[in-house]
Amino acid sequence: MTSQTQDWRSRAKAKKQQQLDSIPKEWILRNPPSKDQLNVTDIPRTCGLLSSREIEITESHVEAILSNLAKGIWSAVEVTTAFSKRAVIAHQLVNCLTEIFIERGFARAAELDDYFKRTGKVVGPLHGLPISLKDQLCVKGLDATMGYVAWIDKPSEKNSVLVDTLESLGAVFYVKTNIPQTLMFPETYNHIFGRTVNPANRALTSGGSSGGEGALVALRGSPLGVGSDIGGSIRIPAGLNGLYGMRPSYHRTPYAGNVNSLEGLNSVYSVLGPLTTSLETVKTFMSSVISKEPWQYDPLVIRKKWNEDEYRLCDHNGGKQLCFAILWDDGMVRPHPPVLRALETARDALTRAGHKVIDWDPAGLAEVNNVASKLWGSVGKQDSLAVTSLSGEHLITTMRPEVEDLENLFELPSRYKALNLTAFEFWQVNVLQRQLRQEYLDRWRETANVTGTGRPVDAIIAPVAPYAAMPHGQHRNAVYTTVWNILDYPAIAIPVTTVDPILDVKRERSSFYNEDDRTNWEYYGPEKFKDAPVGIQVVGRTLQEEALIGMTEIVDRSLKTYQPKL
Amino acid sequence: MTSQTQDWRSRAKAKKQQQLDSIPKEWILRNPPSKDQLNVTDIPRTCGLLSSREIEITESHVEAILSNLAKGIWSAVEVTTAFSKRAVIAHQLVNCLTEIFIERGFARAAELDDYFKRTGKVVGPLHGLPISLKDQLCVKGLDATMGYVAWIDKPSEKNSVLVDTLESLGAVFYVKTNIPQTLMFPETYNHIFGRTVNPANRALTSGGSSGGEGALVALRGSPLGVGSDIGGSIRIPAGLNGLYGMRPSYHRTPYAGNVNSLEGLNSVYSVLGPLTTSLETVKTFMSSVISKEPWQYDPLVIRKKWNEDEYRLCDHNGGKQLCFAILWDDGMVRPHPPVLRALETARDALTRAGHKVIDWDPAGLAEVNNVASKLWGSVGKQDSLAVTSLSGEHLITTMRPEVEDLENLFELPSRYKALNLTAFEFWQVNVLQRQLRQEYLDRWRETANVTGTGRPVDAIIAPVAPYAAMPHGQHRNAVYTTVWNILDYPAIAIPVTTVDPILDVKRERSSFYNEDDRTNWEYYGPEKFKDAPVGIQVVGRTLQEEALIGMTEIVDRSLKTYQPKL
Repeated sequence: MTSQTQDWRSRAKAKKQQQLDSIPKEWILRNPPSKDQLNVTDIPRTCGLLSSREIEITESHVEAILSNLAKGIWSAVEVTTAFSKRAVIAHQLVNCLTEIFIERGFARAAELDDYFKRTGKVVGPLHGLPISLKDQLCVKGLDATMGYVAWIDKPSEKNSVLVDTLESLGAVFYVKTNIPQTLMFPETYNHIFGRTVNPANRALTSGGSSGGEGALVALRGSPLGVGSDIGGSIRIPAGLNGLYGMRPSYHRTPYAGNVNSLEGLNSVYSVLGPLTTSLETVKTFMSSVISKEPWQYDPLVIRKKWNEDEYRLCDHNGGKQLCFAILWDDGMVRPHPPVLRALETARDALTRAGHKVIDWDPAGLAEVNNVASKLWGSVGKQDSLAVTSLSGEHLITTMRPEVEDLENLFELPSRYKALNLTAFEFWQVNVLQRQLRQEYLDRWRETANVTGTGRPVDAIIAPVAPYAAMPHGQHRNAVYTTVWNILDYPAIAIPVTTVDPILDVKRERSSFYNEDDRTNWEYYGPEKFKDAPVGIQVVGRTLQEEALIGMTEIVDRSLKTYQPKL
Repeated sequence: MTSQTQDWRSRAKAKKQQQLDSIPKEWILRNPPSKDQLNVTDIPRTCGLLSSREIEITESHVEAILSNLAKGIWSAVEVTTAFSKRAVIAHQLVNCLTEIFIERGFARAAELDDYFKRTGKVVGPLHGLPISLKDQLCVKGLDATMGYVAWIDKPSEKNSVLVDTLESLGAVFYVKTNIPQTLMFPETYNHIFGRTVNPANRALTSGGSSGGEGALVALRGSPLGVGSDIGGSIRIPAGLNGLYGMRPSYHRTPYAGNVNSLEGLNSVYSVLGPLTTSLETVKTFMSSVISKEPWQYDPLVIRKKWNEDEYRLCDHNGGKQLCFAILWDDGMVRPHPPVLRALETARDALTRAGHKVIDWDPAGLAEVNNVASKLWGSVGKQDSLAVTSLSGEHLITTMRPEVEDLENLFELPSRYKALNLTAFEFWQVNVLQRQLRQEYLDRWRETANVTGTGRPVDAIIAPVAPYAAMPHGQHRNAVYTTVWNILDYPAIAIPVTTVDPILDVKRERSSFYNEDDRTNWEYYGPEKFKDAPVGIQVVGRTLQEEALIGMTEIVDRSLKTYQPKL
């Protein structure tokens, strides 16, 4: 081991220690669960650290919290305290946080309470609401390491546009959340903060790259988190943790001023969106952020006001007798039984509610996914290597626990082949992407011939992934989410069910699309996925955020009516 | 000379001959002006080929034409005949056309007349309006060579989205217009169709790359032309021909289905927009195209309806007491006296009309222009060379008449240096572009501190170019237009005046920014620019098409009130 590598390891360790030291002593779990206890979802409410009022606060949806804050029933300080405590408890269970800055949260909350006391008014629609932020979101004075050792002790000089926007709406910030190094994995592990695990089963991944958010919000350590998504990084952790998570279209929410990977890739853009416990909150987040005219602060944001008529489905028959199309299977890797059951449940619920449900043809998706592979691989990770080379830490190329710490392991998964294209070759990938977007747009529009509604399919329903949360290092397929990023279709993950060994028996198959498909089928056994949540995606057309939320509410409501116990 | 090069020359010649053959014999000018006659603007009305009614039709603005068509006062066939005739006359004077397909135009016009006769109704808001199309716009069954010999006899398989859209609105197509090979020049010359010249002075350029449109519309051979603009290609020919021309923001109008250069350059996008004789027509074009929801047909078009409130300047004090900022000089090349006088006239007219006028600081524009040079040069013309190599014709690298036909002359102007970047290097240019867009957005927003209106500057007024129309081969500077493309600000060129040897005397200067600036100053003499029109640009913020048209109307009206003789 060279001195340089010793150095990065000790810097990572010191940073982690600093994080642990920032936790108030009195919030340390006295009886932490044993490593063998996989499901830790009940511990926050049973560990004895939270009062019953704190449990009530943290288990409320955002709308109730905002309403109680606006009425003065709850103070911002007590709401912030409750979530700070619960976030720290969650962190001890699933290792979901990066920066912990609850003192700043308290100070901000106290200011808001003071303002409310003086004026009787809220500062904005998110007055007093604690919001957790994925590590890459820049908050003045705090690190945004993104899991890179080289970026330790480089505090952000100012807030990013979204952070400023949320603050101006009344938000309180108190924690940032864990990510995989490079952000380009659907799981969450890096050399500084380690691995985030799934609260429903700690042997399983919490997903990624917004895996810290997924685990934290699932444990109600935050009522609303901000994640980013370039290939599923919001929807995968939302789906794998039983949450709601939205990927808006490119440039609907402001990205400026945050750190990121793949900077300068102007073909598919990472976007910021919410992970939360209700669909209403997804709308609150989107409409309130857009109400602040983020195009005044981020040159890439589209000047397009929030449109309540579109939300009320003025272009979709007012929400009556919609036609949904289900993508059962992408023709590359067939989903596991719990995922198929979630889709079947959605079909039955929507049909019962009077909507039409047809099948969505997977044609073209393989080509779309190929474009993703080419785009991710086009510069061969030169951007990430430029950062890791500064500290000497190695580039992480797998999330598998047994090999993650091997240095200089260049086992690049196939979706991430280093292509090292020229600019001209790269442009040809862009041309192909545009062509596929054109073909898909035409395909969708032409469904008007088969829906029987006079309109094209209103929304597509698809798996979030071909499986529920996988054991660590096994979640390698992000195709079901990535294709919509390449096409720039907004998509919302919503929870449907959890893996049920009785219902989700292995389904026999005799033929397979390819080796990945066979391996995935062979791998399945319900016992591996014990307690894992299962979500689905509802997918709309580009820049249809308002209508997509409206249609997803219909899906969500139909599901809740159909299976009222959930 | 090899047989291959002989071959491309004969193919080019045959195509040109085919074009000439498509002109009805009875529309050939019996007494064409001598080469020495530079100003040919009066010839269409004096040559004897047009009836007085045809003169009346072709010298009407679009609104009057549409109104007379809708009332049945003029038939579509007679309007199409008048413009077809005048287009062919114009072509004989300034060589502005590529494809001439007036028979198709007549057939379409007859159909429209028939529909009108049967129903008493128009098919749409552009019912019966002849519209000319820049060569790169694809019309089913017609070539779109873009000046490349290799693309001769490769008719388009279908209409592009914009062509379909305009057709559905009622347009009649009859001619396509000339462009420079590669489209990446602000003048117009290629090996097939030759050079387009300026109707006001045939020794001067008509601009480019939509130079055929500029010359045709200036001669009233078309009431409305569609051009494209990635660095000024609509605004330069509009400005140099005394017309109105708009560059909308990226993805506000549909581009899909046309041929283009730099395909896959996802950093700065070429956009389609109108060249015409009134500002009202700019609005008619934009609002009617957007009314057809082009996002249903082109995946890149932004889902954003036309907003009349924004046009009525709801975000700009209803149009009262606006604050305009004038960019007098970009700090790189100071404009010639006629251009400065045009800006002074605008300042005085706006001040007289009760608006505030301040100076716009050119800081940052040099960096923005550097990004343009890097983007244009990033793949070293590999895309164009791939096309020229198919036929053996050489890549045109200068518009200078004395050298344009030298083969394999690789005198690349400095703005076009072949960089042959890697994808990763190219991404860094994108990062720089985004950073400059951020800085410029912040700069503009912060002008709220100095305008005294409580708002940031409402619009910027800038030169179209540092000179009026230049002698052929001399128009090399496109910085005044290109910077807004890189920043993605919509901009409208409007006419202000013409070069006046008495008013536009050379202004003494003792110091210069650089050699280009000195050369440009030395070059000036009003006699070189005899009769040349001078326009200015009005520049708005990204996706502010509606408000920009509204504000430009204020500028235009103020100018017309201030100098009523124009």
